[in-house]
Amino acid sequence: MAAAAILPELATQVLIPVAAAVGIAFAVVQWVLVSKVRLTPELRTDGGAAKSGPSDYLIEEEEGLNDHNVVVKCAEIQNAISEGATSFLLTEYKYVGLFMGIFAILIFLFLGSVEGFSTKSQPCHYSKGKTCKPALANAIFSTIAFVLGAVTSLVSGFLGMKIATYANARTTLEARKGVGKAFITAFRSGAVMGFLLAASGLLVLYIAINLFGIYYGDDWEGLFEAITGYGLGGSSMALFGRVGGGIYTKAADVGADLVGKVERNIPEDDPRNPAVIADNVGDNVGDIAGMGSDLFGSYAESSCAALVVASISSFGINHEFTPMVYPLLVSSVGIIACLITTLFATDFFEIKVVNEIEPALKKQLIISTVVMTIGIALISWLGLPYTFTIYNFGAQKTVQSWQLFLCVAVGLWAGLVIGFVTEYYTSNAYSPVQDVADSCRTGAATNVIFGLALGYKSVIIPIFAIAFSIFLSFSLAAMYGVAVAALGMLSTIATGLAIDAYGPISDNAGGIAEMAGMNHRIRERTDALDSAGNTTAAIGKGFAIGSAALVSLALFGAFVSRAAISTVDVLTPKVFIGLIVGAMLPYWFSAMTMKSVGSAALKMVEEVRRQFNTIPGLMEGTTKPDYATCVKISTDASIKEMIPPGALVMLTPLIVGILFGVETLSGVLAGALVSGVQIAISASNTGGAWDNAKKYIEAGASEHARTLGPKGSDPHKAAVIGDTIGDPLKDTSGPSLNILIKLMAVESLVFAPFFAAHGGILFKWL
Amino acid sequence: MAAAAILPELATQVLIPVAAAVGIAFAVVQWVLVSKVRLTPELRTDGGAAKSGPSDYLIEEEEGLNDHNVVVKCAEIQNAISEGATSFLLTEYKYVGLFMGIFAILIFLFLGSVEGFSTKSQPCHYSKGKTCKPALANAIFSTIAFVLGAVTSLVSGFLGMKIATYANARTTLEARKGVGKAFITAFRSGAVMGFLLAASGLLVLYIAINLFGIYYGDDWEGLFEAITGYGLGGSSMALFGRVGGGIYTKAADVGADLVGKVERNIPEDDPRNPAVIADNVGDNVGDIAGMGSDLFGSYAESSCAALVVASISSFGINHEFTPMVYPLLVSSVGIIACLITTLFATDFFEIKVVNEIEPALKKQLIISTVVMTIGIALISWLGLPYTFTIYNFGAQKTVQSWQLFLCVAVGLWAGLVIGFVTEYYTSNAYSPVQDVADSCRTGAATNVIFGLALGYKSVIIPIFAIAFSIFLSFSLAAMYGVAVAALGMLSTIATGLAIDAYGPISDNAGGIAEMAGMNHRIRERTDALDSAGNTTAAIGKGFAIGSAALVSLALFGAFVSRAAISTVDVLTPKVFIGLIVGAMLPYWFSAMTMKSVGSAALKMVEEVRRQFNTIPGLMEGTTKPDYATCVKISTDASIKEMIPPGALVMLTPLIVGILFGVETLSGVLAGALVSGVQIAISASNTGGAWDNAKKYIEAGASEHARTLGPKGSDPHKAAVIGDTIGDPLKDTSGPSLNILIKLMAVESLVFAPFFAAHGGILFKWL
Repeated sequence: MAAAAILPELATQVLIPVAAAVGIAFAVVQWVLVSKVRLTPELRTDGGAAKSGPSDYLIEEEEGLNDHNVVVKCAEIQNAISEGATSFLLTEYKYVGLFMGIFAILIFLFLGSVEGFSTKSQPCHYSKGKTCKPALANAIFSTIAFVLGAVTSLVSGFLGMKIATYANARTTLEARKGVGKAFITAFRSGAVMGFLLAASGLLVLYIAINLFGIYYGDDWEGLFEAITGYGLGGSSMALFGRVGGGIYTKAADVGADLVGKVERNIPEDDPRNPAVIADNVGDNVGDIAGMGSDLFGSYAESSCAALVVASISSFGINHEFTPMVYPLLVSSVGIIACLITTLFATDFFEIKVVNEIEPALKKQLIISTVVMTIGIALISWLGLPYTFTIYNFGAQKTVQSWQLFLCVAVGLWAGLVIGFVTEYYTSNAYSPVQDVADSCRTGAATNVIFGLALGYKSVIIPIFAIAFSIFLSFSLAAMYGVAVAALGMLSTIATGLAIDAYGPISDNAGGIAEMAGMNHRIRERTDALDSAGNTTAAIGKGFAIGSAALVSLALFGAFVSRAAISTVDVLTPKVFIGLIVGAMLPYWFSAMTMKSVGSAALKMVEEVRRQFNTIPGLMEGTTKPDYATCVKISTDASIKEMIPPGALVMLTPLIVGILFGVETLSGVLAGALVSGVQIAISASNTGGAWDNAKKYIEAGASEHARTLGPKGSDPHKAAVIGDTIGDPLKDTSGPSLNILIKLMAVESLVFAPFFAAHGGILFKWL
Repeated sequence: MAAAAILPELATQVLIPVAAAVGIAFAVVQWVLVSKVRLTPELRTDGGAAKSGPSDYLIEEEEGLNDHNVVVKCAEIQNAISEGATSFLLTEYKYVGLFMGIFAILIFLFLGSVEGFSTKSQPCHYSKGKTCKPALANAIFSTIAFVLGAVTSLVSGFLGMKIATYANARTTLEARKGVGKAFITAFRSGAVMGFLLAASGLLVLYIAINLFGIYYGDDWEGLFEAITGYGLGGSSMALFGRVGGGIYTKAADVGADLVGKVERNIPEDDPRNPAVIADNVGDNVGDIAGMGSDLFGSYAESSCAALVVASISSFGINHEFTPMVYPLLVSSVGIIACLITTLFATDFFEIKVVNEIEPALKKQLIISTVVMTIGIALISWLGLPYTFTIYNFGAQKTVQSWQLFLCVAVGLWAGLVIGFVTEYYTSNAYSPVQDVADSCRTGAATNVIFGLALGYKSVIIPIFAIAFSIFLSFSLAAMYGVAVAALGMLSTIATGLAIDAYGPISDNAGGIAEMAGMNHRIRERTDALDSAGNTTAAIGKGFAIGSAALVSLALFGAFVSRAAISTVDVLTPKVFIGLIVGAMLPYWFSAMTMKSVGSAALKMVEEVRRQFNTIPGLMEGTTKPDYATCVKISTDASIKEMIPPGALVMLTPLIVGILFGVETLSGVLAGALVSGVQIAISASNTGGAWDNAKKYIEAGASEHARTLGPKGSDPHKAAVIGDTIGDPLKDTSGPSLNILIKLMAVESLVFAPFFAAHGGILFKWL
């Protein structure tokens, strides 16, 4: 019945690392192109300073290009930001490292105890009659995979930050030559990050599978169960990155805005504002490093979810390597598809005016989706046998390759739909944001009411898109279908990350322009880039949340299978209490993170006020503020405050599993998933809409917008309040929630053997 | 095995109507006591005007007691409010009546079509081998019950409004004599409403059961299935009442505050504000009439849920009347328990100073809970056989009477826990609200961030309380246990409604004092009453939401049984898509209602601004504003805007059931329940906290509060913005959400026979 896949194993073994290598090479090329934008010769350390110095940027002189002071200043500011970000991340990693170390030990102890640390082989869990590696091996390799995932995630975030801080001043300098040049620089830098992360995530996973395979041999069931630790490691790291970075950036941002913009009436990013460096550092550690870790985590988890189900389907049972690593093949094709897509933005077309930016980014989404659809069709034809079976809660379901193509494709296209809906609700080119801006006419209260309503409303279509994808993929290929649908949504991750990272880079570029005292036209250009960046950030978050919903469900399904329960019946008390408590967890988590941002922002406000009040000459610009104290406030707050929400997420599955058992834990996972996805979408869109409503008034690009402005008018003040409220929603609690739902699911899956053996002690007592 | 209950049927048949009659009589006594506070003789129409006139209120003269002008003004304002409220409610009822008429026809057609409108008896659904009345009879009686429920709900709301508008000016006048007198008047009026509603709800249900019983005879299964329509009618009416009233009141409130307090810097309820009458009318149609309908709906539904399960348990099968109507017995005892409780507030103790108000109301909750616990123990002992069986998804579960006592008691005490937690998070006597007030120091943005975080956090303990109640009652007595737990929580409804209605009455009293130009000391007293009222309103909403969660689950369980599905497995695509879409519905609904309030408020703001700008002498108080136009704006907006959210809730179960079938509908119900309950709690607590944070600053009762004030300071302005944002959250979308979850569940149950026969056509096609 089951004919083999067209692609032989050897070809697969070549294709995956080659695709990864191509992705890395492409990232390097983009990086070289960005590095051609020179910061002042004084700051260069490559020896060739004097010769190729100023002349390079004198060619296309437009305005202020030969003002050396400006260039020196830009370089200085970039250095300050980069140093601040590096120092924060290293501090963060130190604390998180400790936590992760303890957690790694827990994983080893819990999984090792399943069979009492026995080194004897054991009967397989799924493949009846066969012998698998001992539970102890699973404990050891799961722990290794966990550490590997965590380290890869950490490196991803750190590299992203380095690239972004390398690119921001360069974007500022290019903005002098025109908006098109600046766009290309920011976008290329985003692409460096996107391709580097997508390719290295794939490569590390591929290598791990092959290395682990040396020990596991024919025991694919055990091999891919252990590999799941990779997803857990990636996501755990991402959680702390998102929460810590999110608190850091928003404490600084809110604090800076509240005193600077609202009380002192100085512009955003004004160098007189003591919190301005912390604010710009925050963009890099929160939006860049946090997001990099986050999307890497999603990618790792959806791959792991698909692989673990595949290993107990016909691919795994019959040891067919090519279809077994179909998830990795999809990612490989994704890198190539994104590479082609990127050329459309950087080489095939050129941006000349401001209002071409958003369409250009939107085209990236469309092109990558179309190209990738062809890619999926191709790889499904080449990489899968025509007919195969998929594990479905104890049974095997017969599936055909075109059905799996549909699963991946529906995820991919649902991502596009979510992207467009997000754009519609958060871009100031459409009526929803314009309505929110208009409501500022009657003050901050109506602005907030309209913004919240917009966020709630923006949930509707994405949820239908997710529900449709789930229904189709679930019906066609059970949990494996859902997992590859998630992978489909994430298959264009390189492009997604590129346009996502582009936003904070532009934001920082604007900040540097302001701080370096550059011409206001430069600032207008970077603002235009940034406004499009707000929309793309919201789109990126939409993708992250949508894929998180799919991947959580897939992991949840795998967990249920592994925990040996066959149904999750809502109408049993154990499950129902799990469901309602699970649906509460996102609220608990959001309460913690928002309160953290609020408290840290209050401290920041006091410090900034203190400096304005006590440092003579600060407002006049004759004295420099004390940036370091503000950086310290953000650092201390985020390090201290990221622990409780992190612990909530990481300990809940353990506590519930141990005390209440797998049925209640299933309820918790389902509840957190269906509730969390809604809050995450609405929070990130509400925040995005407020930010762009403010920018809409500031830009004053239409008749309507001008009636609300200018900067400093009452409607503008109301819009600033909305923007400030949106900050923790869209950059701290919202995006962390998708990690919450994924992480709890993958953690449950990793600990499933332990829970199945020793869980539910409370009910056993009663 | 099953010994009969101690209480014979005859005693039960006497006890229930007598308890209802006592409740009604008590309400009348309280009303007579309130009516002793005379409005000016000029306005009296009972003939005895001249004689017993002024002397009555000259006795305890304190301040301004003999200022006849003030009394005349109060009476005038009260009349204006009462007329506005009456006219709005009649308009609302006209439109809703049309909708309800159409829906009644739908119920008849859908249920009648189950057996093709056959008049032949049919085999019973549950009692195998027995013959039950035809489906057509079920259709007819369900429709009648629906209309009956709707009419009772309508009358409840209308009566509540009448009582409140009768009491508000009287409370104002009593406030001249001291805070204690005013408190008693407001509280007694609340008690009139509480007892009238609790007693009439019980009485109508009791009569309906007996009348329907004449036709149904021994077919109790059919009888109580038809009675379920009563719950549906009550809740449908409540939905429109809450949404329509909520939009009305908040459009006026937000509009009045935005121009009056923020722009023109005139006090709340200043008679120069054109929206002030609409605002006060709104309190009565939203908070009073809406809430009355809502809690009546909850009560009707939890009774119906319990009855329908009892009818297929041993009580129904063996035709044991006393245990069969155990839910009604619990309510009867509840009326008596609340009666005793009320005496503690009105007769046994006397309020002398302002800070005795909140403790007095809190004591009401504690006393009623303690007394009721004894009552439940008694009635469980008398009204139930020692051992009996309860229907549990196809099986019969053996239960003992003390276990059922535990079910009711856990619901009752969980209600108290929810009440206290709500108080903690919304009263300005505790740190959470004080922290929110403190965050106003740095502006509106931090206020909103802290307020939202507070709301999210306030969800945690109530959800644990609900989960614990569900687990215990579900484990002990299946869905019947959950239903009686809900009933337990609502058994002190008369007291709950009394302290709940007290709030808006005090609010109105304050408004009337301001408008009548009374001494500021009077206003301070009513403000103190009102501040306690905000907390009790939040507590009332907590009860409403908690009981809604329990009752929805019970109805959901009954629906699943009736729809003949045995499990609701999350891990089937049909159920899961229902779950995630269901969890989205509360967001969709909230988006609609909040946007409606926002838009209507914008119109109101424009009108108020127009009047201030174009009517000469308005600000100086020499010309009267045009109140009628503002009333019309609120009326038009709420009538127009209540239809879409109402239709969303009422049509969703029909559409899902018909197109996707009962499994998906089960998912929708579970999803809406677990997601809606969180938003509802957080929205109402956030709003309550903001309101009281503002009042905390205004009252300036502590050193800390005084550093934030006085009225008009920057922190106070920030607090006003928070209060305004909280208005639609706590009074429109929040409290409507508990109706959403209950209504969808009861509607599914009523239509279950139809869905089971003809539902899911989309999947049948595929």
